[in-house]
Amino acid sequence: MEGEEVSNKQIILKDYVIGFPKESDMILKTSTIKLKVPEGSNAVLLKNLYLSCDPYMRNRMRKMEGSYVESFTPGSPITGYGVAKVVDSGHPNFKKGDLAWGKTGWEEYSLIPTPEVFFKIGHTDVPLSYYTGILGMPGMTAYVGFYEICSPKKGEYVFISAASGAVGQLVGQFAKLMGCYVVGSAGTKEKVDLLKNKFGFDAAFNYKEDQDLDEALKRYFPNGIDIYFENVGGKMLDAVLLNMRIHGRIAACGMISQYNLERPEGIHNLFCLILKRIRLEGFIVNDYYHLYPKFLDMILPYIKEGKIEYVEDIAEGIERSPAALVGLFSGRNVGKQVVVVAHE
Amino acid sequence: MEGEEVSNKQIILKDYVIGFPKESDMILKTSTIKLKVPEGSNAVLLKNLYLSCDPYMRNRMRKMEGSYVESFTPGSPITGYGVAKVVDSGHPNFKKGDLAWGKTGWEEYSLIPTPEVFFKIGHTDVPLSYYTGILGMPGMTAYVGFYEICSPKKGEYVFISAASGAVGQLVGQFAKLMGCYVVGSAGTKEKVDLLKNKFGFDAAFNYKEDQDLDEALKRYFPNGIDIYFENVGGKMLDAVLLNMRIHGRIAACGMISQYNLERPEGIHNLFCLILKRIRLEGFIVNDYYHLYPKFLDMILPYIKEGKIEYVEDIAEGIERSPAALVGLFSGRNVGKQVVVVAHE
Repeated sequence: MEGEEVSNKQIILKDYVIGFPKESDMILKTSTIKLKVPEGSNAVLLKNLYLSCDPYMRNRMRKMEGSYVESFTPGSPITGYGVAKVVDSGHPNFKKGDLAWGKTGWEEYSLIPTPEVFFKIGHTDVPLSYYTGILGMPGMTAYVGFYEICSPKKGEYVFISAASGAVGQLVGQFAKLMGCYVVGSAGTKEKVDLLKNKFGFDAAFNYKEDQDLDEALKRYFPNGIDIYFENVGGKMLDAVLLNMRIHGRIAACGMISQYNLERPEGIHNLFCLILKRIRLEGFIVNDYYHLYPKFLDMILPYIKEGKIEYVEDIAEGIERSPAALVGLFSGRNVGKQVVVVAHE
Repeated sequence: MEGEEVSNKQIILKDYVIGFPKESDMILKTSTIKLKVPEGSNAVLLKNLYLSCDPYMRNRMRKMEGSYVESFTPGSPITGYGVAKVVDSGHPNFKKGDLAWGKTGWEEYSLIPTPEVFFKIGHTDVPLSYYTGILGMPGMTAYVGFYEICSPKKGEYVFISAASGAVGQLVGQFAKLMGCYVVGSAGTKEKVDLLKNKFGFDAAFNYKEDQDLDEALKRYFPNGIDIYFENVGGKMLDAVLLNMRIHGRIAACGMISQYNLERPEGIHNLFCLILKRIRLEGFIVNDYYHLYPKFLDMILPYIKEGKIEYVEDIAEGIERSPAALVGLFSGRNVGKQVVVVAHE
């Protein structure tokens, strides 16, 4: 296989996206690729197995400057986190046959010129797709956001929005393991049931059915919220601010409700930050990858002992990836959205 | 004098205030008071010398629940920070003739049932009025907000709004002493000149003359802002968010531009908190008074050596206190607004 020239299905971004992304913003193109790294390079040639659909990718579909992520390049394949097998390597850290996760292309095979941000997969007694989620970027995001940013303490009141997503479901379970009271919001009855029955949240509600979010939060948190894990922004954030407790903490992980708006909604209740001495802190997992080994030491036993549940929503075939990505923004996915490109 | 019954001018809040406060929201009333504490009590009887006009007092004029400060009681005297002389004391920490600062009434004489939050004044080789400002609550606010909340480092880019006020002028000088680049905004040419020529800011601008705050900030901070000391909220905060640097910090001290609005303006750029991993933290000086001795050790030498400048705007006579307080919200004061009730 190595050295061969093969056909390579790719998902190309047509142009920068305004408003709600559509499947037609992406096109499937078939090109060819030689399964060999350039002579003398540090590159790796990967066969992509699983692709990760993540909300932050919406921001890469627009022209952004000064951001933590680069915009996608219209006319080129989308890039994102994925799990891959090394077909050829010029890099000392990787050899043919290695499994790894990191930033790859939305295509069957990718040539990665500098694989410095790839992590070699050492534990294969768990599903490989987990490295797009619980054992990959979203898992690290939940870990860092909760333990490093929220400074949680036993018995605290924790609220998580978009709580059944890749990150939210883990944050909630981390908080339960710590002895917190945990409530999540999600957008369908199915997800709410999942939060309560599968992930062990103390309570959960459908934000689409509660017209008055302030009132809903007061119902679930009569004593207020110590920790808010923010994934959605907008009206939910504004309502949460009214319900925070003194010295509360908000980890701002994402604001998915705002990503398709031309102008984000206004947040009116920021004065609560002063009244209640609240810390609202944005973070990005990229700053914390040095903690990945420590994270694995914690999470792998939890998974193997069944102390943490994990739900994936798997789409089969790279052709389905545009729909899978777009579905994130209508909340179509239940759990972590993964695309299978190939089964090894 | 002690034991005597004397007349006592008081400033009474008529009713909760909606919108912009007016002098007529307060009335001057003359009652009488006996200059003696009740037998067996822990109270102190104070002769008020200086009263402090502070922006946070606007919030006490409305009915608020769950706040760090209690609402004023309509029909009763306004309360606030002040400097006073002890006329009679039932409390072991205070004796007749002591000078102290803390929360007192807007009246000539106050009976304070529990003076636990009063600080005895040990250093009288500085103007006593300073204990309403640089040596009192606003000084501590600047100290805590800058050193504890902003985690400043030498060479960082610091922006301060309402920079000529009691707190802002000190924050700017603290930042300069640390070797930061410091820019302030204020609302008149006179204040801007003060910032540049008296307080040693690197630059200053009149926010009323710069229609495009984003553009103004980009002019003064071509490399962005590391630390924003937030006193005003609203449009300024929204513009600052666009200009923060990665890992920037915002200390939310006040939001004076919003205090007279029925509904605060919406802040649209909070996603910048995530993009740039910014910490936005509200704080209240009350949580930090245990640091007051440490603060005095730092600030007194600076004052005596002329390393820190301090500007007060002094109104003479308790009758002028309603106008002085209301003036804060139109920016009439230049420097810390103080009211002299009596010269000892």
